[in-house]
Amino acid sequence: LSPTNDRHPLAAVIVVGTELTQGFSRESNSVQLGRWLSERGLRVVSAQKLPDDIGTVASAVRAYAGTVDVLIITGGLGSTHDDITREALAEAIAAPLEKDERAYEVIAARVPANADKDSFLRQAYLPRGTAAIMPEAGTAPGIAAELNGMLIFSLPGVPREMESMLGFVDGELRRHGRTNAPPRVVRARLTGRTEPEVARLIGPVLDAYPQLTVNILAKPEEISLTLISYEDLESAFDEIKSLLGDCVFSDKGESLAEVVGQLLLERELTVGTAESLTAGEIGALLASVPGASRYLTGGIIAYENKIKTELLGVAPEILENAGAVSAETAAAMAEGARLALGCDIGLAVTGIAGPSGGTKEKPVGLVYTGLAVNGSVITERAIYEGERETVQRKTAFHALDLLRRFLIGAAE
Amino acid sequence: LSPTNDRHPLAAVIVVGTELTQGFSRESNSVQLGRWLSERGLRVVSAQKLPDDIGTVASAVRAYAGTVDVLIITGGLGSTHDDITREALAEAIAAPLEKDERAYEVIAARVPANADKDSFLRQAYLPRGTAAIMPEAGTAPGIAAELNGMLIFSLPGVPREMESMLGFVDGELRRHGRTNAPPRVVRARLTGRTEPEVARLIGPVLDAYPQLTVNILAKPEEISLTLISYEDLESAFDEIKSLLGDCVFSDKGESLAEVVGQLLLERELTVGTAESLTAGEIGALLASVPGASRYLTGGIIAYENKIKTELLGVAPEILENAGAVSAETAAAMAEGARLALGCDIGLAVTGIAGPSGGTKEKPVGLVYTGLAVNGSVITERAIYEGERETVQRKTAFHALDLLRRFLIGAAE
Repeated sequence: LSPTNDRHPLAAVIVVGTELTQGFSRESNSVQLGRWLSERGLRVVSAQKLPDDIGTVASAVRAYAGTVDVLIITGGLGSTHDDITREALAEAIAAPLEKDERAYEVIAARVPANADKDSFLRQAYLPRGTAAIMPEAGTAPGIAAELNGMLIFSLPGVPREMESMLGFVDGELRRHGRTNAPPRVVRARLTGRTEPEVARLIGPVLDAYPQLTVNILAKPEEISLTLISYEDLESAFDEIKSLLGDCVFSDKGESLAEVVGQLLLERELTVGTAESLTAGEIGALLASVPGASRYLTGGIIAYENKIKTELLGVAPEILENAGAVSAETAAAMAEGARLALGCDIGLAVTGIAGPSGGTKEKPVGLVYTGLAVNGSVITERAIYEGERETVQRKTAFHALDLLRRFLIGAAE
Repeated sequence: LSPTNDRHPLAAVIVVGTELTQGFSRESNSVQLGRWLSERGLRVVSAQKLPDDIGTVASAVRAYAGTVDVLIITGGLGSTHDDITREALAEAIAAPLEKDERAYEVIAARVPANADKDSFLRQAYLPRGTAAIMPEAGTAPGIAAELNGMLIFSLPGVPREMESMLGFVDGELRRHGRTNAPPRVVRARLTGRTEPEVARLIGPVLDAYPQLTVNILAKPEEISLTLISYEDLESAFDEIKSLLGDCVFSDKGESLAEVVGQLLLERELTVGTAESLTAGEIGALLASVPGASRYLTGGIIAYENKIKTELLGVAPEILENAGAVSAETAAAMAEGARLALGCDIGLAVTGIAGPSGGTKEKPVGLVYTGLAVNGSVITERAIYEGERETVQRKTAFHALDLLRRFLIGAAE
């Protein structure tokens, strides 16, 4: 993925906004555009956040001319005094701002009632010799320009408005021959392993294939692995997949809840939850998938012990002898959920989310998961590190993954 | 916030990684550093993602020398062949890489078992004349350098390792007089209003105070407003606060669940939930706050209708006549939760998350919220736009906000 010495056109991205450079806000346009350009075979040599300052943006635009083939700018096209991209672009290409009649009409028709019409109509003034990219929504037209052979596309910062103009940009890139074959990208989402474990596992393959770029994005509850190559490296991809094995829950991008839902539908099974420390997170994850009502009956958030006994039928002796955080309680909760909710599978978690409540024998992060089905129960024990919400999230994902492993016959 | 013409030192940030420029991964170091630099009175003139390419990074470093006072680079200091920041820095300041004895010893002691020791020890070779910033964790030392008066700090890309070196950077900035008074930053988090509504409401104040930089970060479920000024603008801040009124739930950064939890503790009240379309999300939000067990008793995820009748005691006639998605059902669920869970307040939601299941009379996004306390019940009706998960999230936040408004006496 070296940005030079090949036939892949070079691109740069500028994202305009002082709130972005100063860290008061975050943006994702540069990520989306990076991916979009990658998919068209362009190499991005820089993705740069710049403040709302005409001179700074104009200098950057001029500096990219002669270096890259395509420059995409987002943001700064709105109607307020902070919006300086039109002026910066005019300065960069040394062209005065002029009224664009077509843009003027569209904007005039769309100015919100009670708004300051003049400030909105400023958006119709574009650098001479450039072309307006008409907005599908909103009032800010994009601008298509050229400087020393570099194609420039200035797009709105609002992601939806920006996206609506990418079809036009795509056409222009193809018309000017500024695209190439995209890299091969393979993705895998997995859970139940830590990032160092994954790195150690696949390390030898990466060493053997230096042309392969790998990205490991580790969230507390799951790991996304992205493998990128401009060459044909099927054998490397296959080796990595087989090294990772069953802990990969998806290689097509689906979430864990989607995978579990699909398995439940295929096997015609319903599920209900009994949640202590996650307090509903497992149910909410299951219900995030459209059509979840076909396999999710409901759940019981048993935060207090009395709810474990009264609604889930956990015997008081179990709570007294083994404790609320125990394999016995997790098993009884899972079986209780199955009965109380009238479903095929009861899925239960109990544990200590922290930061307080831990003991030497039962530390913060200790979690028991239970899965009851057909009179038999599986339980698992784990200790999760992290803050309270991290422990809760890992617990919820672990429970869903236990359900997944049970459904594919990989849980014991 | 113009980056020139004042005494605020200028800074730039470079984040190294081809997976970042190509959009295969996202980073937050540039946001964190932007904020960190802001808090020290520096103005960030550029925050730039660059690929793993020695020449590209070296050129960028040289281009910043003479332009900014401080350059912070993150990433590319690891032990793999992709890690090129040491080489790029050496090329930029025209100094060969030399072994740093102190770094060598620390790294040698920390190389993981079974790892390729030589590749790790590469990290101990730093450009001549620069200083190692010793890592608290991990094996990658940071590098402190200087080029034409510009202070350069090259830090690891792993956020925790980067953060552990910021204390050192802070000391260096102060020692070299490269800090200034930070801007005044006022934040407000609010819910129950759309972004255009907020923009319209506070627009006149922003027009009256052009020195004020405002950032509105709109998530489906809440809006974060950040007001930034290098001048004293208390009156503007006060005007904006009074315009926004009761829909602001926090001006200190707390989450809605934290605010609600604090109010419940102060009033010595407990709560339990009955959730249909959110399937546990309200319970999970409440339980995300440490100590939630002092006011959250539990909940019932009543996804299927039979659970609404069997566990929440909703009369079958209500479901039959008014329907599962109705004010009557929300009220009965709230009261049922209060009784079944033995708590002071029952909080219930029922609605249609979509994408299917809507009718002309009861469209996708229709949600009823119920709050039962002391024998009386409040219900609210709303129609939320968006995808399934957006409707669910807005519903959960609305329910928490109804609880908040009830607790401060602002719900009817």
